[in-house]
Amino acid sequence: MKPTQKAMENPVLVEVTRGGRIESRHRGAVAVSDPDGRLVLALGDVDAAVFPRSAVKALQALPLIESGAADKYKLSEAEIALACASHSGEPIHVETARTALAKCGRDAGALECGVHWPLDPDAARALAASGAAASALHNNCSGKHAGFICVACAAGIDQRGYVKPRHLVQREVTAALEGATATKLDETSAGVDGCAIPAYALPLRSLARGFARFGTGVGLGPKRAAAAARLRAACAAHPHLVAGTGRFDTLVMTALGARAFVKGGAEGVHCAALSDLGFGVAIKCDDGAGRAAEVVMAALIARFLPLSDREHALLDARLNPPIRNWNGERVGGLAAAEVFGLLTKAT
Amino acid sequence: MKPTQKAMENPVLVEVTRGGRIESRHRGAVAVSDPDGRLVLALGDVDAAVFPRSAVKALQALPLIESGAADKYKLSEAEIALACASHSGEPIHVETARTALAKCGRDAGALECGVHWPLDPDAARALAASGAAASALHNNCSGKHAGFICVACAAGIDQRGYVKPRHLVQREVTAALEGATATKLDETSAGVDGCAIPAYALPLRSLARGFARFGTGVGLGPKRAAAAARLRAACAAHPHLVAGTGRFDTLVMTALGARAFVKGGAEGVHCAALSDLGFGVAIKCDDGAGRAAEVVMAALIARFLPLSDREHALLDARLNPPIRNWNGERVGGLAAAEVFGLLTKAT
Repeated sequence: MKPTQKAMENPVLVEVTRGGRIESRHRGAVAVSDPDGRLVLALGDVDAAVFPRSAVKALQALPLIESGAADKYKLSEAEIALACASHSGEPIHVETARTALAKCGRDAGALECGVHWPLDPDAARALAASGAAASALHNNCSGKHAGFICVACAAGIDQRGYVKPRHLVQREVTAALEGATATKLDETSAGVDGCAIPAYALPLRSLARGFARFGTGVGLGPKRAAAAARLRAACAAHPHLVAGTGRFDTLVMTALGARAFVKGGAEGVHCAALSDLGFGVAIKCDDGAGRAAEVVMAALIARFLPLSDREHALLDARLNPPIRNWNGERVGGLAAAEVFGLLTKAT
Repeated sequence: MKPTQKAMENPVLVEVTRGGRIESRHRGAVAVSDPDGRLVLALGDVDAAVFPRSAVKALQALPLIESGAADKYKLSEAEIALACASHSGEPIHVETARTALAKCGRDAGALECGVHWPLDPDAARALAASGAAASALHNNCSGKHAGFICVACAAGIDQRGYVKPRHLVQREVTAALEGATATKLDETSAGVDGCAIPAYALPLRSLARGFARFGTGVGLGPKRAAAAARLRAACAAHPHLVAGTGRFDTLVMTALGARAFVKGGAEGVHCAALSDLGFGVAIKCDDGAGRAAEVVMAALIARFLPLSDREHALLDARLNPPIRNWNGERVGGLAAAEVFGLLTKAT
């Protein structure tokens, strides 16, 4: 099937420089919304549908809490944070996924996410040096999938096929996504994600609205609002489990705690819930570049959140990340583009 | 220094799809030139200056041949091919860099390119499993740097500092780049590359012209033309040494031999010399995406070169590379965009 969506000229969001010249440019769109769908900020085509990919893992984890599965199996706060994670495959991530599965009587053999080596290069090399092979537990999505399996087991049904759209688990996950984003999702917007579950495209502004609702509970109803608060608290308490060593989301949530829930997804998507302000943020870089989405998210956080000097210093390396040569010398960097002029007061 | 170049609206060159929808888009510019600088094809802003990065390694290796250093040290054809390489750090690459250095009486300690783990994940994990650490020999540029060191040694000068602009080696390298591309390069266009040598920005059309001259010898003078032919022959004979297992440049040169010299560089640059046709090709993806530059190069080769069914089948996986989930199922792919409609007759 030939795709037919027209390419809108989204603005340049991030510039990559070398020797004082622009080497590369990243275009994209940004939506910042309140829970009612009113846009606080819009850059580029915020009506275009995007695949949020792993940026919505926390929304996909809502059924784990709402169904009672997390309580039934006495999942720890760490295991709940890992259910929202794209983790780096470090030993603590692997062990946490393993214990979550064990609590519902399953093991790595039940995971249908596929196998890949740890995202963290040091962890991958350490695993290789140990003589072990990569397993589905090392897949960055293993915590989310462990949560899915808990949902199936708590419901008393066969967990096999839990990645398929018609399985109870994915029907509940899709319903949670629809509820949070106030968007109807169906097969016309569906693809398949890297970990084999359905991926639904939805308008960037709806995604931002979904995170405003996730961050505030407004419009979710009391049960889902409580589940969202519990997921946010788990991630704020265990930011290392949501990503890993040196990763953007871990750094931001370590610095800002419950003030900023942030989560990246593949292909240049990044979302956030800024609960104090009641804002949800959704970013999509046209070209799929995560390095650019992170700079945009850092710029938006610096613009919207009041930051202490210490918090700003922590964020600064991600606002203007350097590019270094292999001798460690700074030879260039990334920075938010001029379209962010109005937004970068705090830089 | 605040960069001031204006961003031109280059066309979408490559679309990334998932579930029949476009997930991401890559914009950029393409120049195909003859040796006299006449454009056979131009898409986007071909006058904009780009950093060619590692795409010009073969041009940077011209002094190794022209100076007589390769002959003085009896470098093998494999060692000459490695001087043009961004290699994957596999054992054969490391060993070839080591022998080239040994021939001029040096070792890894003379390399100033810095250290990184092998680009090839399997090679990196095997190295870690062996208990060894990464060295400068594993740096993807180690063959090029071994060549630089041979040039210094053959000239009877201290090789130390050979990465600096004022060292004889870089003055010769810059002169070769200027000669091949018919472009004056100076500090106003200079940055520093990932391996610490100078990087000069030059117009995309000049880069294409440079590869037309490199591929034909036209305009280079007899000595440089012979050096270019020797470098092309070495790469055609040893395509695995120019990149590595599964890499685009290795695959294309393995399939097409001397008919297509192709070389990618960081930040979405790809160049080629199509010697039979007398064309040089230069591609720059605005966003720095190598995955897109490869698809564009595959589309241009399929358009311009007459291919046998077997050759076309080999190229096909790079014309429309699939995106698979971690279970190996095809969930999307990359393809040249509609702007290539006129070019994709052979697909």
